[in-house]
Amino acid sequence: MHRRIDIYDSTLRDGAQGEGISFSVLDKINIVKALDEIGVAFIEAGNPGSNPKDLEFFEEVKHLELKNAKLVAFGATRRRDIRPEEDANLQSLLIADTEHVAIFGKSWDFHVTEIINTTLEENLRMIQDTIRYMQEKGKKVVFDAEHFYDGYKNNREYALATVRAAAEMDVHSVVLCDTNGGTTPMEIYSITREVCEQLDVPVGIHCHDDSGTAVANSLLAVEAGAQQVQGTFVGFGERCGNANLAIIIGGLQLKKKFQCIPEENMELLTPTARLIAEIANIRLQDGMAFVGKNAFAHKGGMHIDGVNKASHSFEHIPPEAVGNERRFLMSEVSGRSTILKKINKIAPEIQKDSPETIAIINRLKELEHEGYQFEGAESTFELVIRKHLGKYKPFFELENFKIMNEKPAAGDQFSAYAMVKVRVEDAVKMTAAEGDGPVNALDKALREALEGFYPILSKVALTDYKVRVLDTKEATAAKVRVLITSSDGERSWTTVGVSTDIIEASLTALVDSIEIKLIRDIEEKMKYYL
Amino acid sequence: MHRRIDIYDSTLRDGAQGEGISFSVLDKINIVKALDEIGVAFIEAGNPGSNPKDLEFFEEVKHLELKNAKLVAFGATRRRDIRPEEDANLQSLLIADTEHVAIFGKSWDFHVTEIINTTLEENLRMIQDTIRYMQEKGKKVVFDAEHFYDGYKNNREYALATVRAAAEMDVHSVVLCDTNGGTTPMEIYSITREVCEQLDVPVGIHCHDDSGTAVANSLLAVEAGAQQVQGTFVGFGERCGNANLAIIIGGLQLKKKFQCIPEENMELLTPTARLIAEIANIRLQDGMAFVGKNAFAHKGGMHIDGVNKASHSFEHIPPEAVGNERRFLMSEVSGRSTILKKINKIAPEIQKDSPETIAIINRLKELEHEGYQFEGAESTFELVIRKHLGKYKPFFELENFKIMNEKPAAGDQFSAYAMVKVRVEDAVKMTAAEGDGPVNALDKALREALEGFYPILSKVALTDYKVRVLDTKEATAAKVRVLITSSDGERSWTTVGVSTDIIEASLTALVDSIEIKLIRDIEEKMKYYL
Repeated sequence: MHRRIDIYDSTLRDGAQGEGISFSVLDKINIVKALDEIGVAFIEAGNPGSNPKDLEFFEEVKHLELKNAKLVAFGATRRRDIRPEEDANLQSLLIADTEHVAIFGKSWDFHVTEIINTTLEENLRMIQDTIRYMQEKGKKVVFDAEHFYDGYKNNREYALATVRAAAEMDVHSVVLCDTNGGTTPMEIYSITREVCEQLDVPVGIHCHDDSGTAVANSLLAVEAGAQQVQGTFVGFGERCGNANLAIIIGGLQLKKKFQCIPEENMELLTPTARLIAEIANIRLQDGMAFVGKNAFAHKGGMHIDGVNKASHSFEHIPPEAVGNERRFLMSEVSGRSTILKKINKIAPEIQKDSPETIAIINRLKELEHEGYQFEGAESTFELVIRKHLGKYKPFFELENFKIMNEKPAAGDQFSAYAMVKVRVEDAVKMTAAEGDGPVNALDKALREALEGFYPILSKVALTDYKVRVLDTKEATAAKVRVLITSSDGERSWTTVGVSTDIIEASLTALVDSIEIKLIRDIEEKMKYYL
Repeated sequence: MHRRIDIYDSTLRDGAQGEGISFSVLDKINIVKALDEIGVAFIEAGNPGSNPKDLEFFEEVKHLELKNAKLVAFGATRRRDIRPEEDANLQSLLIADTEHVAIFGKSWDFHVTEIINTTLEENLRMIQDTIRYMQEKGKKVVFDAEHFYDGYKNNREYALATVRAAAEMDVHSVVLCDTNGGTTPMEIYSITREVCEQLDVPVGIHCHDDSGTAVANSLLAVEAGAQQVQGTFVGFGERCGNANLAIIIGGLQLKKKFQCIPEENMELLTPTARLIAEIANIRLQDGMAFVGKNAFAHKGGMHIDGVNKASHSFEHIPPEAVGNERRFLMSEVSGRSTILKKINKIAPEIQKDSPETIAIINRLKELEHEGYQFEGAESTFELVIRKHLGKYKPFFELENFKIMNEKPAAGDQFSAYAMVKVRVEDAVKMTAAEGDGPVNALDKALREALEGFYPILSKVALTDYKVRVLDTKEATAAKVRVLITSSDGERSWTTVGVSTDIIEASLTALVDSIEIKLIRDIEEKMKYYL
């Protein structure tokens, strides 16, 4: 194994600059957990100076116990002609209360004189004053040299002076940023190499994808000596996005044997990428290297034959190495062993070639064709398996429901009502409820009806509700996929429903969620009685 | 201007291996026209041996007069142990009747012995026999060395022997293929350089994006001496796709001053990429370098201010240079000057400090706080401005609506109905409709009610419908943001609605969408009467 590379994720800061991305505090917490789990070294979690909401988040995240990652708060050098203690943004940075802070400063002379309108000397003082101030407050400082490569090409001496100014202060690291994403691979390699030779502190690289080369530029910078790679896990970011860390980790760790994350976590690469995209409600590109749905999908007959003879004949790495899977677009047999593993959790005796396995695989394919997706909704998947194996008996029957949504002639109030009739064996219960929209009304009525039969359900709360429109071209007649996450305070689980009717899709996920809780309850009791 | 680079597009051959891509003959003809128009050198238009439909197309395309591009038919070397005249695939290649043919052969010893099961010597004969036969028939031969880089890494001598075998026959060019897409940038550079030094014929490069580095690998190969770049115009292809030629042309021609296409055609780069994606019915990635919708979209306030001062402060090239355009995304972090530009489109007289500007900014902030987001929903933003400036009068009033969604006791059928009552001045119209879910039913009923008053609305179709659950912690009671894109066949526009009730959020976006169309209609008429 070669040297260690620090992976520095900025999904929550630079990634949030991407179009259509806006994270809630809970989204952010979940992303931090996922990044920590896979083992990145640093998580740049916000810019508390420019966005007061980020401070709220830093307050919340403080209570999280992280095992791998360190949180970083991000901000600019002090503004020109004032002292650091007078700079409100720097004060916000301190309030964020992280061990590391990232300070970005200008390295391009043109930006210094024309955009922030100060002198080249004052800019150097801004860099050093800010670092000194932060260090006095006990912070470890990552210095981001904004527009470093453009600066170098315009005024080599000055650009180098800015990073030397930071390096002299013995910062944690100096990060060379290709802020506009316009530097070509060979330039990145040679300039980074020169800087690595000149500085005594670790050097990092921060690329943007405006030339479609952010991943390669990052790899080349590492070959040139960089020890830290900044980016966003699935490439979110302004304009064309930031360097995609999932792809970079794949390239560095599998091909170049650098250590980016713990080796045993490499198979989390695909699930983590998909989870982060799901949280952001952004569709992961099917063709994304390593982690995309099509990354190992073979269509040409010759390629499929080749892969069947020897997978490396048409695959640069084994898909399992990154937790992805091979797909044959015309034939099938994909992922049978993955599915078998899940079946064996419920019925350990079933084999790879059992008729049950084949039947379940066929059912899964049907469901996937309908728009289901079981990544992150394993509870619904468990119910599919149980239903096929006969290890399932419905806990209740939803005999009838009716929803009304109306706008009265007077007033702007919208209102939604639901009426529900459930049967549990011979007993029937009817309830009605009013809610914030039809789904909420239905949810309330259904719970009220069932809690009489199953009081344990009162412990269950829905903690997450997501809607994804599939095939958006069908507009309001399109299918939707609804994901519901529930929690009983100890465990949480996710279920999924698909329909052209959002009410039906929600109801399917809701019913599955309730059944899973009731199954867990029985499993719990069996521990004592079996 | 540096040396000329031949751009060799394989959208119709390798690109057609991508998932979800299937071209009709007319699609192919249109793509050939677009590629010829922008000025690529070669169009690899099909594999007549493996796909008989491609022969049909070659017959059709013969009648097209091309001004820049040459068509190429693609096929394998003769099969082992037979003569070229006995090989049906080679006969099909001849029927295609193109001046150039591309012949691919094996360069990786492992593939020779383990996949096609022959000897290393016979493989060399297959290469030379096929080239000789094609040349005797008057063809210029492009030799594609399949898996060249993997072959080189496994058995350098043999891989070099395969390309030498072709070069000795004085072929048009020898193309080094990274078929599995697993070769890293620096390897591509150094291996390509070695081959370019050894061969007397022009060398080409053919990359796949499995490591996310196909564009950079292609650029580096050119720096190492390659004179031809193969790829697909917007990156279509099996697995992660082929090298994206639109991005490569941008990089080579704008940054490295190579000549790939006629200089005056550079501004066709974006329209051509979008046209090809449109023909393929594939959504072009918003973040695609150079040609994506977001390639020059700015969200951060500081970036927007910078670009307003000097565009190159945060843009690596001017968007006009590739026929793209700059966009300022509306968001909580975007500055006043962005908003003013939008206001000035409607009311040019309003200033940055006018009370109207301040009032609109405050309203915008309120709406953003409620969960609105105007990125990509600029039409709703326009209505906000109009309402504030008094440049707005409602076209109709939705007096009442009622939605019902029910599950009957018998049968699994879900059904949704909507009833709507609208008023246009003194006239009232009631309608009812059934739909795929409540939103679709409401949409149908509302349109039916309004088309009597505004027949022009019959031209409007919803083309996209997106739902984002905000603050998912609130589960089914959470707010949702709905984005609706509409089109009248010429223009498309997007509107947004937010509510805890998905019906209300959808309705808001729907009403805005209809009003925008009616405003555009008036603007259209004003052109004649003012």
